[in-house]
Amino acid sequence: MGLLVDVADGGTPVQLTKGGWPPHIAVDAMGGDGAPEAVLEAVRLLDADCCRLVLVGPAAQLRDRVPPGVRVEDAPEVIDPGERPVRAVRTKPDSSLVRGLKMLAEGEVDAFVSAGSTGALLVGGALLVGRLPGVDRPALPGPFPRPSGGFTLVVDVGANADCRPRHLVQFALMGAVYAEAVDGISRPRVGLLNMGTEAGKGNQLVRETHRLLEQSPLNFVGSVEARDVFGGLADVVVCDGFAGNVLLKAAEGVAMAVMELLRRELGGGPLPVRVGALLARSGLRRALSRMDYRDYGGVPLLGLNRPVVKCHGSSDARAIANGIRTAIRCVRGAVPDRMKAALSELTGGKLS
Amino acid sequence: MGLLVDVADGGTPVQLTKGGWPPHIAVDAMGGDGAPEAVLEAVRLLDADCCRLVLVGPAAQLRDRVPPGVRVEDAPEVIDPGERPVRAVRTKPDSSLVRGLKMLAEGEVDAFVSAGSTGALLVGGALLVGRLPGVDRPALPGPFPRPSGGFTLVVDVGANADCRPRHLVQFALMGAVYAEAVDGISRPRVGLLNMGTEAGKGNQLVRETHRLLEQSPLNFVGSVEARDVFGGLADVVVCDGFAGNVLLKAAEGVAMAVMELLRRELGGGPLPVRVGALLARSGLRRALSRMDYRDYGGVPLLGLNRPVVKCHGSSDARAIANGIRTAIRCVRGAVPDRMKAALSELTGGKLS
Repeated sequence: MGLLVDVADGGTPVQLTKGGWPPHIAVDAMGGDGAPEAVLEAVRLLDADCCRLVLVGPAAQLRDRVPPGVRVEDAPEVIDPGERPVRAVRTKPDSSLVRGLKMLAEGEVDAFVSAGSTGALLVGGALLVGRLPGVDRPALPGPFPRPSGGFTLVVDVGANADCRPRHLVQFALMGAVYAEAVDGISRPRVGLLNMGTEAGKGNQLVRETHRLLEQSPLNFVGSVEARDVFGGLADVVVCDGFAGNVLLKAAEGVAMAVMELLRRELGGGPLPVRVGALLARSGLRRALSRMDYRDYGGVPLLGLNRPVVKCHGSSDARAIANGIRTAIRCVRGAVPDRMKAALSELTGGKLS
Repeated sequence: MGLLVDVADGGTPVQLTKGGWPPHIAVDAMGGDGAPEAVLEAVRLLDADCCRLVLVGPAAQLRDRVPPGVRVEDAPEVIDPGERPVRAVRTKPDSSLVRGLKMLAEGEVDAFVSAGSTGALLVGGALLVGRLPGVDRPALPGPFPRPSGGFTLVVDVGANADCRPRHLVQFALMGAVYAEAVDGISRPRVGLLNMGTEAGKGNQLVRETHRLLEQSPLNFVGSVEARDVFGGLADVVVCDGFAGNVLLKAAEGVAMAVMELLRRELGGGPLPVRVGALLARSGLRRALSRMDYRDYGGVPLLGLNRPVVKCHGSSDARAIANGIRTAIRCVRGAVPDRMKAALSELTGGKLS
């Protein structure tokens, strides 16, 4: 897209904090339901030379369990799942999440990956790593799988419950930069989540955002409906965090409901149906696994000065490993630098 | 629930406009993609003595095609699908939709059923049939099927894009009255659509509505997430029309995506999988048909003085027939009268 300046053309990494490829990636060893086992196992799934890993967590617990070449950064404190994000970040400087974010802020590593609390990561990310100039609020993107292959990136899926039009424009821009820099989509098509595609549809926020996006240099394709997220009408779909969260959880809910219905119908049916189900199971499993959001592995919080990748709380080793790969791609694509340049172009223009 | 007064206890119909059972039901013969054939076919699917039907549409086209005992009300004008609702209602008094609503308003029939434009039905309903005292805005409910059986009624799924807290409280009350009077659910559990169930979650609208619902006499069970709509946590889930529309269309989108994935995986798989799929097909079809929203047949616009039932635009004969049955249940349950009493109790109290 025209917005992008050539910060890291062709995937050549530039400006690595610690210098030289492969990048240094800090991983929260204690984040997520499967920690630390899932994280330790994830490390073994990665190519040894893809990155230089630092596991952040209680050294006493981790030191004897990491493979050679993986560093351990001691962070003995633990954030409880129920703890309020702001409080956790303020009062637990030696938790793995806060320690990892500080390492990133101080340039000791090039990216940070965590399956810990989304709230704490957002608060800590904004507080410690800082927002890019021109970003009012970091956003949480969500990749939605399409049956035809690929993903639609929805921004925001829950970081920002109340938004103004200019926030949505920033989400659109950050989503487009990410889709181009990491997923390699040229001039990503940006859609606005709406109740219909006719002119004048939507709530006040959406109608005003529509006007702003039309004037922006983004490849804006207009309003799209929630069902279009699963089609191929747009690469990036922008919405406030409340609507995005409804979309995300509705999708999870329906996918679970369909699996439950299939289980009931196929398991309790007459013998030929049950035999058929047994034979068809591998196909069913493949089909439904495409709807499993955890397979994507992790998404970066958009709008921070350096890459912070959030993995699903229930991530297994494969998901954590995929999250680390996402972090490496963010470093390789110089995502924050590209966003900074694009935001500067945007706010220097009529949208500021 | 305590809110209900005994307007029509035990299903005994009272206050029928034209007197006596069965009720008079007007049906828009020209509404929906399948009109008028689907409507004519629907008439044949109904028990002859369930209601006294009036088909509203061009008499010249309908007269020779209706079964004996079914009246035709001439309405030769047609509303185009793309026509703006307010304009259509104002400029086409002899369209089937406007004529049917006028018959209802003037007491010639007890309910009106249409698969025509939702927008025109909402505008026309408010303008011609009128809102119940205490209702700021009529709402469109959406029944979401649960794998475990039954439905969760979501209010609003698209009639009101921008809402205030008091509107959501009215939606909650109307949904609860409907669930009790028509679906026979005693003290329906009302949930508030939110991004999480922890206190303080949500956008400003939801946080304020939460406080109002806690103080209301409704059986409020707190915040629910979009995925819970497919579980059994609440009978009625309340949200603004934008969020509800996202929920509805996300559900449609995922259901379609899953079907598409299954088709690809099962159709293109190795022979045993394809044979299995063939055997399992009846079970699959049953499972997926439970996710088909059109099967519900129709929903009443909540908050009007008399029952107006909206059927899906792509309704087939069975769906239209189910919509007519819904209208009969609304008359039998004296839904508008019950709502009026409940709203009066609500607005007479601390929430006014």
